[in-house]
Amino acid sequence: MPVYLHDIPLEVAQQRFTEALQEVGLWGILGSEEIPLDENAVGRVLFAPVWAKISSPHYHASAMDGFAVRAEATAGAQPGHPVILAAVDGEDPGFAYVDTGDPLPEWADAVIPIENVEPLDQLGQPGPDPRRPAVIRIRAAVTPWSHVRPIGEDIVATQLVLPSGHVLRPVDLGAVAACGHAVLRVARRPRVAILPTGTELVPIGQPVSPGDIIEYNSLVMAAQVGQWGGQAVRYPIIPDQFDQIRQRVLEAAQTADLVLLNAGSSAGSEDYSANIVEMSGRLLVHGVAVRPGHPVILGMIATQVKVPEPGSSPGEMPRWTPIIGVPGYPVSAALTAEIFIEPLLAKWLGRKPNQPEEVRAVMARKVVSPAGDDDFMRVAVGKVGQQLVAAPLSRGSGVI
Amino acid sequence: MPVYLHDIPLEVAQQRFTEALQEVGLWGILGSEEIPLDENAVGRVLFAPVWAKISSPHYHASAMDGFAVRAEATAGAQPGHPVILAAVDGEDPGFAYVDTGDPLPEWADAVIPIENVEPLDQLGQPGPDPRRPAVIRIRAAVTPWSHVRPIGEDIVATQLVLPSGHVLRPVDLGAVAACGHAVLRVARRPRVAILPTGTELVPIGQPVSPGDIIEYNSLVMAAQVGQWGGQAVRYPIIPDQFDQIRQRVLEAAQTADLVLLNAGSSAGSEDYSANIVEMSGRLLVHGVAVRPGHPVILGMIATQVKVPEPGSSPGEMPRWTPIIGVPGYPVSAALTAEIFIEPLLAKWLGRKPNQPEEVRAVMARKVVSPAGDDDFMRVAVGKVGQQLVAAPLSRGSGVI
Repeated sequence: MPVYLHDIPLEVAQQRFTEALQEVGLWGILGSEEIPLDENAVGRVLFAPVWAKISSPHYHASAMDGFAVRAEATAGAQPGHPVILAAVDGEDPGFAYVDTGDPLPEWADAVIPIENVEPLDQLGQPGPDPRRPAVIRIRAAVTPWSHVRPIGEDIVATQLVLPSGHVLRPVDLGAVAACGHAVLRVARRPRVAILPTGTELVPIGQPVSPGDIIEYNSLVMAAQVGQWGGQAVRYPIIPDQFDQIRQRVLEAAQTADLVLLNAGSSAGSEDYSANIVEMSGRLLVHGVAVRPGHPVILGMIATQVKVPEPGSSPGEMPRWTPIIGVPGYPVSAALTAEIFIEPLLAKWLGRKPNQPEEVRAVMARKVVSPAGDDDFMRVAVGKVGQQLVAAPLSRGSGVI
Repeated sequence: MPVYLHDIPLEVAQQRFTEALQEVGLWGILGSEEIPLDENAVGRVLFAPVWAKISSPHYHASAMDGFAVRAEATAGAQPGHPVILAAVDGEDPGFAYVDTGDPLPEWADAVIPIENVEPLDQLGQPGPDPRRPAVIRIRAAVTPWSHVRPIGEDIVATQLVLPSGHVLRPVDLGAVAACGHAVLRVARRPRVAILPTGTELVPIGQPVSPGDIIEYNSLVMAAQVGQWGGQAVRYPIIPDQFDQIRQRVLEAAQTADLVLLNAGSSAGSEDYSANIVEMSGRLLVHGVAVRPGHPVILGMIATQVKVPEPGSSPGEMPRWTPIIGVPGYPVSAALTAEIFIEPLLAKWLGRKPNQPEEVRAVMARKVVSPAGDDDFMRVAVGKVGQQLVAAPLSRGSGVI
């Protein structure tokens, strides 16, 4: 005998779902994979912290075009009393021209920018190649490490570059590359199966007759799932036939991490969903006190997975797959996705859930909500003087 | 003799670039293409407005599970004086059970929710099938269009659904599907060629020696271009050799809509870029007064395109391709992309350029900028009491 749990508060529903996921070890990151460090890494979530393998810079680098010198050799140089350094053959030539980014020679500890040096030939005249002078004249002393970017100025090897759970942005890819990584370990993308049901549904692009409803909830939810870091698989429309729906649910539950069962709008369709979940696993929640969207169903589907047992015949163990029965009305469906699916995907990816930007505003008109329900309302927000005012939009749950 | 245009103000640089693009007809949407209405449409920019082909709902639909009736037949019904309607054979049966979403029968003009109706059998008792009663007893009159969603309640055919230039979000796909579209005409994605140059560069994932610089600017810029709606092609690293660089630039300019030439950090590399642009087309700007990033180069590359001339041999006409010489330092490169590339891609896609969120804050310490430069600074913003305070981050342009 089915026990229906009608319109329980949102928090209770979320808690019941979370606990059921915890019991079967599905309240955490689902897994990880290694991906190459390329543009497709944007939006992926780091599974492990990224530590610097090499420093950046990974050598003492000249920060300017100029001459590498030993700072002590310039001691005492003043505008009226220049110091003159002459090139010496051997390992320590005394000075050497360097471009920005060039490594500092071993014997040097500072760089003098080229505009502060007079490069001269043997006769004390500007020579033909200012980068290979015989002597250089310096009119100001420099301190050690002047115009040098020392090893690890930006990042020191072993330092934390990015924490786990970080969602990669374009500039992050540069930081990861700079510290010596060519691959990344990221959370694997949760697989979400989306099953639209309803005899009245017709696919996008087909002619419609009165009573036909164009099926686009699966498209909107697939796009949402993609934006939230999941991988959606859209199933073809299933007519309102109990056995067909149940068969598809069990099929989807075997490969997906999450099954979304989008109920038809006809009477009984929602009960089908609840019954299927009850027959095939555990019905946790049937109806949540949120508007729009209260006919949400939360549950777990059990399928059998064959496991080889060492030294004996293969056994079977249940595989639990969460299922969300999503209401058929478009606005309810999109809101259900935001309330239940986005936070679950965030948990499975190890990232923070999206926080919608919050503003406080005064309602433009009085709105009555059913007692005990969390009423989500789409509003247009505008500024009147210093005051933010929110004007409720039409409540029809068919309007997106 | 090259004319170098050093460090002109940002606005002047942008204007000069815009005018040059206007002259050759490249300051507008580059083109459009038709794409199927699926999840991959998210983020694409509408080339033309979307008008509703069909209304939503596209028929008078029941808004409740209940009985369709003619409202006038319920006139006078009161709790103590119910009206009883008996089923009649024929085209106008007097009442008919409807599910939510079902089309309203032609003869009906209102729906009474099932909970407000007593469906009875011939003997005046609740019958075996409450959806097919012999009579219904009604204890409250209804007005025409009660619990009916009339044709076009959400969207009326021919109505504007989304304007051109709109960037598609998941819910938009639903709205477009609901009003009868299966394909979308969107702006085509601009092709951006990214050419890293520099003998000191090594690809990501290779061992590095002192002086080697890991090439990741092309990766960061490719990811940025992707996020802004363009299609990036990363070229292999080109050593600092004038002819090789020039050849690759001309090659890239023949197929790309925009060429990004990322200068090496070695002396002369930037002059190579300027000379190549000058030799191969028009050098518009060499140096912009923004920090970090001032060695930006803006120009146009001319390549020859063969065009068949009617009735004669094929002629040639120049194809102009804008080129941006991007500084080698990572922070400069990323900033240059934001200042010059993002707005250009926005123009080519027909969407609004990104507006970074603006806040006003007090600087945590005094900062000195060179006079006449627009100084972009990365800061950490925090709240101290009621006051937003911005603390400047390290200025090294190597840190991302």
